[in-house]
Amino acid sequence: MPVFVTSGPIVAAIAEVLTRARRAASPGAVATYIPELAVADPEQLGVAVTSVLGHCYEAGDAAAEFTIQSISKPFVYALAIEELGLVEVRKHAGVEPSGQPFNAISFDDAGRPANPMINVGAITATSLIPAESAAERFKRIRDALSAFAGRPLELDERVYASEASTGDRNVALAGLARANGVLAGRVEDAVDPYFRQCALRVTADDLSVMAATLAGGGVNPVTGRRVVDADAARQTLSVMASCGMYDRSGDWILEVGLPAKSGVGGGIVAVSPGRFGIGVFSPPLDEVGNSALGVAVLKVVAHEFGLHLFNRPVTSISPVESIETGDDATVTLKLRGALDFVAAERIVHEAVAVLASRKPRMLALDLGSVTDADTSAVRLLSAVAEEAKERGITIVFADPLDVLGH
Amino acid sequence: MPVFVTSGPIVAAIAEVLTRARRAASPGAVATYIPELAVADPEQLGVAVTSVLGHCYEAGDAAAEFTIQSISKPFVYALAIEELGLVEVRKHAGVEPSGQPFNAISFDDAGRPANPMINVGAITATSLIPAESAAERFKRIRDALSAFAGRPLELDERVYASEASTGDRNVALAGLARANGVLAGRVEDAVDPYFRQCALRVTADDLSVMAATLAGGGVNPVTGRRVVDADAARQTLSVMASCGMYDRSGDWILEVGLPAKSGVGGGIVAVSPGRFGIGVFSPPLDEVGNSALGVAVLKVVAHEFGLHLFNRPVTSISPVESIETGDDATVTLKLRGALDFVAAERIVHEAVAVLASRKPRMLALDLGSVTDADTSAVRLLSAVAEEAKERGITIVFADPLDVLGH
Amino acid sequence: MPVFVTSGPIVAAIAEVLTRARRAASPGAVATYIPELAVADPEQLGVAVTSVLGHCYEAGDAAAEFTIQSISKPFVYALAIEELGLVEVRKHAGVEPSGQPFNAISFDDAGRPANPMINVGAITATSLIPAESAAERFKRIRDALSAFAGRPLELDERVYASEASTGDRNVALAGLARANGVLAGRVEDAVDPYFRQCALRVTADDLSVMAATLAGGGVNPVTGRRVVDADAARQTLSVMASCGMYDRSGDWILEVGLPAKSGVGGGIVAVSPGRFGIGVFSPPLDEVGNSALGVAVLKVVAHEFGLHLFNRPVTSISPVESIETGDDATVTLKLRGALDFVAAERIVHEAVAVLASRKPRMLALDLGSVTDADTSAVRLLSAVAEEAKERGITIVFADPLDVLGH
Amino acid sequence: MPVFVTSGPIVAAIAEVLTRARRAASPGAVATYIPELAVADPEQLGVAVTSVLGHCYEAGDAAAEFTIQSISKPFVYALAIEELGLVEVRKHAGVEPSGQPFNAISFDDAGRPANPMINVGAITATSLIPAESAAERFKRIRDALSAFAGRPLELDERVYASEASTGDRNVALAGLARANGVLAGRVEDAVDPYFRQCALRVTADDLSVMAATLAGGGVNPVTGRRVVDADAARQTLSVMASCGMYDRSGDWILEVGLPAKSGVGGGIVAVSPGRFGIGVFSPPLDEVGNSALGVAVLKVVAHEFGLHLFNRPVTSISPVESIETGDDATVTLKLRGALDFVAAERIVHEAVAVLASRKPRMLALDLGSVTDADTSAVRLLSAVAEEAKERGITIVFADPLDVLGH
Repeated sequence: MPVFVTSGPIVAAIAEVLTRARRAASPGAVATYIPELAVADPEQLGVAVTSVLGHCYEAGDAAAEFTIQSISKPFVYALAIEELGLVEVRKHAGVEPSGQPFNAISFDDAGRPANPMINVGAITATSLIPAESAAERFKRIRDALSAFAGRPLELDERVYASEASTGDRNVALAGLARANGVLAGRVEDAVDPYFRQCALRVTADDLSVMAATLAGGGVNPVTGRRVVDADAARQTLSVMASCGMYDRSGDWILEVGLPAKSGVGGGIVAVSPGRFGIGVFSPPLDEVGNSALGVAVLKVVAHEFGLHLFNRPVTSISPVESIETGDDATVTLKLRGALDFVAAERIVHEAVAVLASRKPRMLALDLGSVTDADTSAVRLLSAVAEEAKERGITIVFADPLDVLGH
Repeated sequence: MPVFVTSGPIVAAIAEVLTRARRAASPGAVATYIPELAVADPEQLGVAVTSVLGHCYEAGDAAAEFTIQSISKPFVYALAIEELGLVEVRKHAGVEPSGQPFNAISFDDAGRPANPMINVGAITATSLIPAESAAERFKRIRDALSAFAGRPLELDERVYASEASTGDRNVALAGLARANGVLAGRVEDAVDPYFRQCALRVTADDLSVMAATLAGGGVNPVTGRRVVDADAARQTLSVMASCGMYDRSGDWILEVGLPAKSGVGGGIVAVSPGRFGIGVFSPPLDEVGNSALGVAVLKVVAHEFGLHLFNRPVTSISPVESIETGDDATVTLKLRGALDFVAAERIVHEAVAVLASRKPRMLALDLGSVTDADTSAVRLLSAVAEEAKERGITIVFADPLDVLGH
Repeated sequence: MPVFVTSGPIVAAIAEVLTRARRAASPGAVATYIPELAVADPEQLGVAVTSVLGHCYEAGDAAAEFTIQSISKPFVYALAIEELGLVEVRKHAGVEPSGQPFNAISFDDAGRPANPMINVGAITATSLIPAESAAERFKRIRDALSAFAGRPLELDERVYASEASTGDRNVALAGLARANGVLAGRVEDAVDPYFRQCALRVTADDLSVMAATLAGGGVNPVTGRRVVDADAARQTLSVMASCGMYDRSGDWILEVGLPAKSGVGGGIVAVSPGRFGIGVFSPPLDEVGNSALGVAVLKVVAHEFGLHLFNRPVTSISPVESIETGDDATVTLKLRGALDFVAAERIVHEAVAVLASRKPRMLALDLGSVTDADTSAVRLLSAVAEEAKERGITIVFADPLDVLGH
Repeated sequence: MPVFVTSGPIVAAIAEVLTRARRAASPGAVATYIPELAVADPEQLGVAVTSVLGHCYEAGDAAAEFTIQSISKPFVYALAIEELGLVEVRKHAGVEPSGQPFNAISFDDAGRPANPMINVGAITATSLIPAESAAERFKRIRDALSAFAGRPLELDERVYASEASTGDRNVALAGLARANGVLAGRVEDAVDPYFRQCALRVTADDLSVMAATLAGGGVNPVTGRRVVDADAARQTLSVMASCGMYDRSGDWILEVGLPAKSGVGGGIVAVSPGRFGIGVFSPPLDEVGNSALGVAVLKVVAHEFGLHLFNRPVTSISPVESIETGDDATVTLKLRGALDFVAAERIVHEAVAVLASRKPRMLALDLGSVTDADTSAVRLLSAVAEEAKERGITIVFADPLDVLGH
């Protein structure tokens, strides 16, 4: 179970965000579409941040429980991809923003729900989770969402009962999906687990760990357990980015620039891929159904802390730590860090310049400080070797950790 | 004028992409909506990559000229933001994906075009460029696009004449925007420069430099000239990400994961923020009007080279290069690289651990290898200093480059 | 039970229409959406005409049975109006053409189905029929439709079973109507009677009597029994006129000009208000789901026999049969026929001219040949009497049948 | 020039309608979209009725002038049909209700405006009027509308100037129609005559005569001049019925049941086919842009006077005036009135009964009181003759007016 830091500089920084958000945003109103939501304390406000290294911070009412509601959608979608693969899942639900509200009747020309972030698409995604019964399906979903959170999540029976008794529209939407041939199985075997998944109780803390699990490519950074594979995580983030905020998705990418999902319970989850996850909680909602203060918190966070996806600074640390010419006309490039295509391009650029200018007899690439190398990097480094060989230059790889080998 | 590398390992890698894309994609058909486009050579295929460090690579027909068409849209939008600011520009055009084709009549409830990537929104963006006349407006646009490309772009008079004589629908769309009160000035003073901007001749090489300028926060990495400010660049990338591929935008984020824009001339531009820009060229189009092979090239590139936005590996190089305890109970954290919130969080995490476990008399933060620090990093480092002081520990910053100061 | 004439001039005339329609129309294809419909004989073609005086004619396969399907919709709507009144019924379903197919998800801003001729509106209308159970509701509907037809209609159990087992979409549509608060009662208590009403077996003969009942203001001209009141009949005809042919309603008013309704069983019903009803039957359907030959028959009928609603000739028989001046300066206007506003205007016009030109001492209005007078006529005739009195002229009504009195 | 009766029983009746309408309706607000309309006197209210026999009645401000605005649309559409035929006109504009406001961008799949009653369809209809220039086109339109009204209509120059200067949206709509290939000629040559036709000055009196011309099958009942042929008149009425009241067309057929068209100048025209035309005028408009009191007047008129299209009583005057058996076993049917299919069916029904029961040697049909017989009637009477002949019965037609001959 994750342990959250509740004091210190990071906490002070995010606590100050809460203060600023309270000043910036008009308060909104607590959801009332089911009575159980209406009793939420409108004054509650909390935020939690969990990094992909497993550092956890919280401020405000981050440990207060509420129901996850629509925030369950991306995680169940990730689970569906994990189980069936994206190709199969896309046969049942599209990935295009619909420009419509969460409860819209939105099907594409092929009869599929526009995307899995609107209700009808989310229910369809739930229907895809392999199970013999509605009960088993929900059990699998709860287990998966608990694995994302790093602790067992509990069902709020009263909220579930309330959703189930007022969910006529969702039942009808599921019926349409079934009539279109995209919902798997019976309507009730999809809708009941869906109502239950929405009624799972979470905290802002939980949301931050769930988000950090997506940020870290599917591995929960607190428990170390892989929940979904890296492709499923990335694909889920993509659909959150394009469809997560319904008919405000374009505005969200522009203003916040983090894949996110909100729920009428007052929660919002946001992900900074490869970096960390954020959970926010504040019950009063704005006119489109997002937590009003939650949105404000994320706008302040994105802006103040420079977290926007496209706010990516030019990497200043070169993967070439040093270039040294030895006595024996050997040039050694000492490399460092994780090597991807971009890093490899810099190495190649430097290596080619070295070959051209210093005309060494031997080129040594020292990978002792390299932590990882993806296939594109391996490929480019091999190409450098080829080039050196063609010039009659001996090439040597010092790779003690065997990063090129696996 | 940019100089492109045409051999070596990087070029070999991207040349191989062309071969794979040819095998993967069905060919498509050259656009014929204006006669001048129909004469394009369907066999042409080229790709160019320009990194934010100004390294330029090309393969295939990357130096072949064609008209920029809709790829002009994001760059003119960036120019409009640069001139008027995003707040003003958003009064005239929205930022939401419309789920509709490029020539749709798509206005939001406020009467604004849904976004500036569809024709009606792009014409509206053009109308916003401050100018006394249509001619001056086009001159400003050409100058800006030339600055993005790093060389003067020329008008294709025949294509322009053809567009102007067959552009009834675009004139009507502009009329609707004007009737809605969002188009600035007269219809003809917007439509004529728009037809001209679409008829500017570019190469895949040019597109890669233009894209790299957005990747680098508005600075052309070849010429070193700032073309738009960092906010305008990021905001433009955001709108490209959500709306750039029309009714395939969700699929594009999922499959490619790079902000992009295509044109019926056969070009596509794609941006890897903070890293590099890509230009692709192949005239035959698929059924939705994107270069068929161009799309294939970008899918292969994104997949093979791991360039998807959300494919961001956990950063393995710690900003804390070393932690050393001196004789005099002084602990020195040697820091490195560009410090943003994420890097600062890691530093704070380490520093707090050091303070707790080693209980030093003095804590030294050595910023000699730090290249930059944004406001969030400065703020967190200051907070660490506060915390140390409260514990009665002396804190020392070694900041020879004054990265904290500016 | 109605007896149909099967020979003679009228039958010859309508039989010839069948021949001409066969030549005019391409054949279409029998519906296959449920297997039971697919077994229909595509060669069958029949037409029947029943006048408001109860004259019944048929030609071709007019006695062949098929399921009524969507043709049940206007009759159940009439029943709903009869039971609840139009005001209440309109709270549950609109009356505007939706421009959409029969199975569209079409709700207006108030959440009501656009009209009761599309499936979702028809199911809603069915839900309104007061009953304690689904079985009772269906019994009431069957009784009413049998009264329209003048004979007991039977349920086709196999078609019903087939509809019920494949009706996912209709169940979902009903669910949406219920979620919108416009469907009365439970979904299953509306959908089951709806599936049953669609599976009632009828003939073209039946349809012509049902139509004649609407034509005659709600009185079955064969049995003499009033089925619905005149307002309900007229209101139903209005909705058939605007919405009966789905997204071809404008074309239908233009080309045929008779309120009508088709069903996928191959039947079409059409009404010439105040004159007669027509039933047509031919199983193969055109691309929008109407009986292909049935449409052709009605186009020929409307065109050849001048039945278009707006093809109303200027009435040549004056309601003033004669004007006679007696010895004693008495002028007698002998009136005839049914007097409505239009007839009364002509009488007033003549009477005023007589008063002005002949200056009689006494004006006598002889209503001995008048068969009826509506309130507007009574009012205008009273006004003439006032005017005569003011001029000092004695006015006398000879009204042996007391048409002015009731 | 038509002369209107301003006193007497009919006038009293319609004057009372004005009083009742004032009580029934909330007042609405005068149109302000162009300044010239805003100066209209909101207290004005007038109504005029012209029968197809040329009787003209008026009450209230029926002689007050205002601009015709959208009421010009059906009359220009009738002119287009008269000139080109319905088949050609339908290639340029559809006939389906769009369910949208008057200024909607509403095109069908073939790129045609949904119907000619919305602006874009009306401008397209105007473009079809054959002419060498915009000026000639307007002259032809003015001449035709003047012929409908029975007096020369004048252009309101100030209103025209105002429409022309604020008509951006209409220009854009015309541009879209042109881009779709359905607008004939240049945009300005359609839009300018359209602005002018909308600015023609009319009175409620004029509207009633114009409407009576459509009611009478295209013949102006006051001047006796044929303006359009009967088909064009009927076709125009059909499109008015389905599309004339925009997104309230279904409600209008239900509640009023007369083809009608309104204009923002405060006028409404309504037609009782074969009977009379109505013009109403009152400047304040309701929320959908129809004259608020005008709508109320027509609802009262339709309801009080039983004018709804489907309120057609069963014709009580039999076309068989008498049946007499002569000494010589000759049976004579004395016929009367205008014979259409319905009347002929009654004659045939009687004749067949006579042939069967009285078994005469000779059957005489006396057409001395018959005023007209359409082709269907001629055909059925011939069929009776055939039948008689087959039974060996001599048949004789007494047709002094040769109604069967022409």
